[in-house]
Amino acid sequence: MLRTHTCGELRREHAGVQVRLAGWLQHRRDFGGVLFIVLRDRYGEVQVTFRPENKELFDLAYTLRGQDVIGVFGTVVMRPPDAINPRMATGEIEVVAEELKIFSRSDVPPFPVEDEITAMEDTRLKYRYLDLRRPVMQKNFIVRHRAAMATREFLNGENFLEIETPYLVRSTPEGARDFLVPSRNFSGKFYALPQSPQLYKQLFMVAGMDRYFSLARCFRDEDLRADRQPEFTQIDIEMSFVEQDDVIDLAERLTAHIMFKVVGYSLKLPLPRMSYDEAMRRFGTDKPDTRIPFEIIDITDIVDGCGFGVFENAAKNGVVRVLPVPDIADKVSRKKIDQLTKLAQEWGAKGLATAKISENGFEGGISKFWTDDFKEKFCEKLGDKFFPNTILLFGADKPDIVSKVLGGMRTMLADEFDIINRSEHSALFVVDFPLFEPDEDSERGITPSHHPFTMPVEDDIPLLDENPLAVRANAYDLVLDGYEIAGGSIRIHKPELQRKIFNLLGISDDEAQKKFGFLLEAFRYGVPPHGGIAYGFDRLVMILAGRKSIRDVIAFPKTTAGQSLMDGAPSEVDAEQLRELGIKIDIQNTDDK
Amino acid sequence: MLRTHTCGELRREHAGVQVRLAGWLQHRRDFGGVLFIVLRDRYGEVQVTFRPENKELFDLAYTLRGQDVIGVFGTVVMRPPDAINPRMATGEIEVVAEELKIFSRSDVPPFPVEDEITAMEDTRLKYRYLDLRRPVMQKNFIVRHRAAMATREFLNGENFLEIETPYLVRSTPEGARDFLVPSRNFSGKFYALPQSPQLYKQLFMVAGMDRYFSLARCFRDEDLRADRQPEFTQIDIEMSFVEQDDVIDLAERLTAHIMFKVVGYSLKLPLPRMSYDEAMRRFGTDKPDTRIPFEIIDITDIVDGCGFGVFENAAKNGVVRVLPVPDIADKVSRKKIDQLTKLAQEWGAKGLATAKISENGFEGGISKFWTDDFKEKFCEKLGDKFFPNTILLFGADKPDIVSKVLGGMRTMLADEFDIINRSEHSALFVVDFPLFEPDEDSERGITPSHHPFTMPVEDDIPLLDENPLAVRANAYDLVLDGYEIAGGSIRIHKPELQRKIFNLLGISDDEAQKKFGFLLEAFRYGVPPHGGIAYGFDRLVMILAGRKSIRDVIAFPKTTAGQSLMDGAPSEVDAEQLRELGIKIDIQNTDDK
Repeated sequence: MLRTHTCGELRREHAGVQVRLAGWLQHRRDFGGVLFIVLRDRYGEVQVTFRPENKELFDLAYTLRGQDVIGVFGTVVMRPPDAINPRMATGEIEVVAEELKIFSRSDVPPFPVEDEITAMEDTRLKYRYLDLRRPVMQKNFIVRHRAAMATREFLNGENFLEIETPYLVRSTPEGARDFLVPSRNFSGKFYALPQSPQLYKQLFMVAGMDRYFSLARCFRDEDLRADRQPEFTQIDIEMSFVEQDDVIDLAERLTAHIMFKVVGYSLKLPLPRMSYDEAMRRFGTDKPDTRIPFEIIDITDIVDGCGFGVFENAAKNGVVRVLPVPDIADKVSRKKIDQLTKLAQEWGAKGLATAKISENGFEGGISKFWTDDFKEKFCEKLGDKFFPNTILLFGADKPDIVSKVLGGMRTMLADEFDIINRSEHSALFVVDFPLFEPDEDSERGITPSHHPFTMPVEDDIPLLDENPLAVRANAYDLVLDGYEIAGGSIRIHKPELQRKIFNLLGISDDEAQKKFGFLLEAFRYGVPPHGGIAYGFDRLVMILAGRKSIRDVIAFPKTTAGQSLMDGAPSEVDAEQLRELGIKIDIQNTDDK
Repeated sequence: MLRTHTCGELRREHAGVQVRLAGWLQHRRDFGGVLFIVLRDRYGEVQVTFRPENKELFDLAYTLRGQDVIGVFGTVVMRPPDAINPRMATGEIEVVAEELKIFSRSDVPPFPVEDEITAMEDTRLKYRYLDLRRPVMQKNFIVRHRAAMATREFLNGENFLEIETPYLVRSTPEGARDFLVPSRNFSGKFYALPQSPQLYKQLFMVAGMDRYFSLARCFRDEDLRADRQPEFTQIDIEMSFVEQDDVIDLAERLTAHIMFKVVGYSLKLPLPRMSYDEAMRRFGTDKPDTRIPFEIIDITDIVDGCGFGVFENAAKNGVVRVLPVPDIADKVSRKKIDQLTKLAQEWGAKGLATAKISENGFEGGISKFWTDDFKEKFCEKLGDKFFPNTILLFGADKPDIVSKVLGGMRTMLADEFDIINRSEHSALFVVDFPLFEPDEDSERGITPSHHPFTMPVEDDIPLLDENPLAVRANAYDLVLDGYEIAGGSIRIHKPELQRKIFNLLGISDDEAQKKFGFLLEAFRYGVPPHGGIAYGFDRLVMILAGRKSIRDVIAFPKTTAGQSLMDGAPSEVDAEQLRELGIKIDIQNTDDK
């Protein structure tokens, strides 16, 4: 046995006990002829003392350097009162070494193995095993482990079966690009890595599995944005004989269970539900962070005759809305306003009208154009948001542009000026999403907001032909702290309706057959009403761990370009491997486009 | 809410309760003008009665056919005493229907959705969602779910962290072929799907994660044998600061926990341990099923002067061994012996010598050549195995051929004549494997028995140069009911020793650097002694579920050719997809070889 205790567990009650410890040398200090080292493992740190009396042992210990891996046999003793370290869990004791075994030596690491480092992320990713050795990173994976355990514990208690879905599947490109895997036995044919287990989990419902879940890896060959990964993990859930409320109820309780188990946070249930329209109007986004104590106010109905022509014109074909940001007017310089204006333009607005509320009322910016009558009505609209030191940001345009600009400003400024209560969590369900969204590239001008298997709201089915964009979906998103952490829907379980939706999307019967034939075939043999939800597990863990990037909660993440800096994937492979697969590299062709 | 109860849960105490049920129509029976249907879901079956009084309802119910999915609202009533069905958990009650909702109709399925079917496996795989709807198959996935839960519960209690390893990794072909995934961003480069998380779990140990596990998908592009799958699941475990006994102890307790939790079986610990040499000698295999009550006996030392020249010659350069199979001599015909002989020849033997033990002693076959002296000595060797109605199968050749033949006969005959106690489980650890095995294809004539990261037994390290085939490994296999269900080893944690092993295997420094450079680099920064074990999870579940094929415990398995008959993977893909990846199909070249 190479150790009897871990480094973090020794306390005053162990005084006098002989122990065998093992770990990494974290610090060493030579003090008054005695060598003190701090030995660390995942469980904590402990001080080990080498006394000069045993010269051979002392001399060996003297050769130790940071990150060497050693084993120590010794006796736990109480520290003298003046040497007690209250910041260290083991700070009341130390271990006086009697034997030392050096398991392996370490070169000088490329960055200090400590919580606070200044290394660039690329260096951290290349030496990821050292990056992960830092306690602050180990904590993220403890959170991840606990979140997965809590998920399984809860769903198991609710009669769900975890069933693994295949990872070598048929390519059914939809939305994102598939990663392809050439088949050797069937040269010229390919498997795909699944973008999600969507079709397979629906088939489990056809198979009568009733309640399925899986922590499933998903693969999407997308052009990576800052916080996306080509492979990521979903808590994937599907249930039979349910309606929207049943899935939302389950997801609420699951989320509350995870948060309580992992970080001890009590989420108040039921969670608020907000329609997509309301979320867009009040927060300019379908994933509002309701911890931000200010929101967008629509003033379209009062701008007629306000004195500012831009508003009056915009109100005719669009909306006029204001974001009143409290307590920062004195901190926002002219230069800052210019930056915000430029940003608003990048986001599609023509400009950014602003004003302030001071002790004297409306002031500066466009307020000089306003009639007294408008000011009075506006003041009424603002209600208790009419407060000195508030800055007013206006959007006057089509609703989607106004939402994008004011919604974006809201989260950006809340973050920048720290106007957000981070000791709380904001959780809510957004519902009543549109079934389709406009898409100029598609044949019929529409594309699914969610996916083509989503059930329309029953009352809206008659609208499918005449006004598809007005049809609401039985779809729902769970928003936590301004992140969409889960999304789901009730699925279509009738082949006729599924065919109709495919047709509306411009997917011909032939194409549907080619892509989803096996699902349509399955639907001929008795399909229960079903629906589900899928959590972005990486993002959920990121929030629970209090991190800003999902790369901090994935062991070996890829860069934005899709590379693993640690193992060097993707890499060149032997010609023989390609020959066996019956494929050839053909890069010229790629450059054609 | 579409149901208030599941089909399996109603009992006499529910009599009088109004319930809403949903499920698949399993049977219908028209009896005396009343329509009885059996409604089924994952939880069980219940009888629903439609009475002719409500004509509209009755007429609608009359249109129902097998596998239609319906919802029923009705009242639970006690059955008349003569209609109670004790074979049905809900057999004391029935539900008198008041409302019926047809969720979806079913075509006539391609095979009956019942436990006992005669459909070919290909048909079952094509309509897998119907195959999985059969209770006997659903049970397998309940076992699988429970086994996974029990695994996580146990390892979580032992301070293990479940950490997900990447699935898009660097290609490091070793042993089997890698599945490759072309990169779009880096045309001409490829990711590989991992054959196991081996390197990544070792890096977690370097990262100080201390105790890692994962239920990880593994991918191997092998020519599939009957019970192999291109993707399969491992319970993957790695621990720091451990020796072989620590890992074996953990694995024993994990296995016992799973078996108790899933099937209520109490495994007696500690498990027996047997050396590889002993296993090969006594059972002719390194995965002996010790429930078979007969084993191989070595008689090399008594054949000198036995009267049968073949034995005497074989003993000079090889071994002579006998497999005494009890209680079947009267059932084994001349024809059967001929079949066995043919099989022995296919397995590499020159022939198969046989004899019998009858009430009169040795009889038939080669016994006529034996001297009385030999008969006496042989009788002594057999001890309490000298028993009438025993058939004796002899092997006289090199040890590996004798092991293969007699070991193969042992399991085959035990199975064929059902000489095996299937109410028990046989579990043991096989240890002291050779580090290398002979390999004529390799440069130095040896190949790793396990993998090149396996630690040699310390006492044997001096033999590495002079006699590498005599070096034992710190490796161990867990054998359950004659299947290798887990295998592991202590890993090399010193770069010098790792380099020496690579050299012995004919892997040059350059090649090692190219393939495993990132691991060798990591080993420069402080590596703890570490080791682990990996379970073939599919096989473990197969045994627990009492099945004979891992395909029965995988939701959507591939055929031996690697096809998924349900979704049709692998399939052709759009030329555009390949163009984007910078690859081209090049089948001609493949046919070259």
